[in-house]
Amino acid sequence: MQQYRAIFDAHVERWISGLPAGRLYDPMAYLLRSPAKRIRPVLTLMACELFGGRAEDALDEALGIELFHNFTLMHDDIMDASPLRRGQPTVHEKWGMPTAILSGDAMLVKAYHAMGTDPNVLGVFNKHALDVCRGQQMDMDFEQQATVTLQEYREMIRLKTAVLLAAALRVGAIKAGATKMDQDRIAAFGEDLGMAFQLRDDLLDAFGDPTVTGKVKGGDLQNGKKTWLLIRGLELEPGDGPMRVQLTKPVGERDVQVMIATLRQLGIEDEAEQEVMHLERSAHEALSAIDPTGHRTAPLRALADLLRMRAA
Amino acid sequence: MQQYRAIFDAHVERWISGLPAGRLYDPMAYLLRSPAKRIRPVLTLMACELFGGRAEDALDEALGIELFHNFTLMHDDIMDASPLRRGQPTVHEKWGMPTAILSGDAMLVKAYHAMGTDPNVLGVFNKHALDVCRGQQMDMDFEQQATVTLQEYREMIRLKTAVLLAAALRVGAIKAGATKMDQDRIAAFGEDLGMAFQLRDDLLDAFGDPTVTGKVKGGDLQNGKKTWLLIRGLELEPGDGPMRVQLTKPVGERDVQVMIATLRQLGIEDEAEQEVMHLERSAHEALSAIDPTGHRTAPLRALADLLRMRAA
Repeated sequence: MQQYRAIFDAHVERWISGLPAGRLYDPMAYLLRSPAKRIRPVLTLMACELFGGRAEDALDEALGIELFHNFTLMHDDIMDASPLRRGQPTVHEKWGMPTAILSGDAMLVKAYHAMGTDPNVLGVFNKHALDVCRGQQMDMDFEQQATVTLQEYREMIRLKTAVLLAAALRVGAIKAGATKMDQDRIAAFGEDLGMAFQLRDDLLDAFGDPTVTGKVKGGDLQNGKKTWLLIRGLELEPGDGPMRVQLTKPVGERDVQVMIATLRQLGIEDEAEQEVMHLERSAHEALSAIDPTGHRTAPLRALADLLRMRAA
Repeated sequence: MQQYRAIFDAHVERWISGLPAGRLYDPMAYLLRSPAKRIRPVLTLMACELFGGRAEDALDEALGIELFHNFTLMHDDIMDASPLRRGQPTVHEKWGMPTAILSGDAMLVKAYHAMGTDPNVLGVFNKHALDVCRGQQMDMDFEQQATVTLQEYREMIRLKTAVLLAAALRVGAIKAGATKMDQDRIAAFGEDLGMAFQLRDDLLDAFGDPTVTGKVKGGDLQNGKKTWLLIRGLELEPGDGPMRVQLTKPVGERDVQVMIATLRQLGIEDEAEQEVMHLERSAHEALSAIDPTGHRTAPLRALADLLRMRAA
């Protein structure tokens, strides 16, 4: 992981050093240099190597994926009015909303530049770029909807989070000349991994250690964010249960504690953990189909383990 | 012109009818259906025919250019906090700012979908998409700058307006298999046409008939917008002249009348008209180099005349 990150970060720095000065580009460099895990570009490099390519040959595509991801962060932060990202002021806080819109737009164009002109790569990127927009729209729609089903929620996080991990892997596989079947397998691994990653996030919000996550315990519950846990809580609790509290009145710290306790009592923590484990098993099966010995997929399995074990 | 517009508008309607329902797509359909001149896509179709192709073969690329143009309008209107566009409420007024950002993003992705995977077409589109963002950034920077030179202003309108007309034509020429030299000529025509178009806009603001333009007479001057006229006025008038008024205090209707009279007295109206005519001559020379008889370029010359004669 560290080795792939180092190669990629050096590529990012080369790219940044080639940017002209000015308010259009400064926010791109700022956001790209803020501390990040680089999961998506590392997946691209690993997938390229897995199928016999050299990681170096997929650096531009990995950059395109990371530029796209950062473009979505820059714009999502405006839409969500978020003051902080990765512990630093967001771009619209620092440069103002117009520059954050425009620099994000230019970053999306730059992502296309980096993806190159291979029709197969572009086809994947085009499709999933739109998927991510659709997922963000669903997420915003959920705020207005009285009820959201688990099925709708799964589709939202699939579009908003999981498909970009799948695309990152598929693009790396394409660069290495992998077969269509292997492309589909590695993309399936990425989608399961992405879904598991998002559900783990939901779980950490309610059951994680706030001194490790750096977030308010139960912040999603307090804000009435319709995550897996809240949706399932509303399904299972009696009509006058504590989950419904947050739909009717401002939710205090005490309410959040009751909600978290209720989620445990209703078995929802266990249920969500089961779903995460199910996704992780499914992800590993996709890898086994590619490489039954497990030798060539060792870096990807190590990355998946890292994501599974994370406490923040 | 009307014939090309009809073909294109039918294509736009087919495209809209294929969109799923939802808040992500509704703003695209709304903006695309608002009254518009369709200059850019018509240029693409005309260029394709000029070099021996069929207009129908460039419809997707024309759509891509128009989608891109409308994406910039949707986002520029947020940045400029404009309540109206083409006489109707802007997207952010109607659906809110987050949806206007996201729908614009998706529209840019859709523009890339429509442009297809021809590396030559994509190369042109990639380059000019970034140019337009750079032009918009320059335009916003001008608001903060104490002084702007005519040269800077020309570069801004070249990037923000002219290059997209050039790209629209070049893409049509590429689709028809035009030579590189002819591509360069038709692009040069488009760039001159775009510059003339923008300068004509500046002139209409101060000297046009507000009952025809539908805009406040001298609105740009009143807002201190650094157009050709204001920049040149500041250059030519004595140190305490009326142009400087708007830099120091709120500008009233009376002040605007004085500014307009001063622009006339300083010969700036004539000078700007000269520059427009110079650009139009240069544009026509580019067409003559392509087709000395002027027969094949008749539709493009008619369109250029329409734009030159416009009073609004």
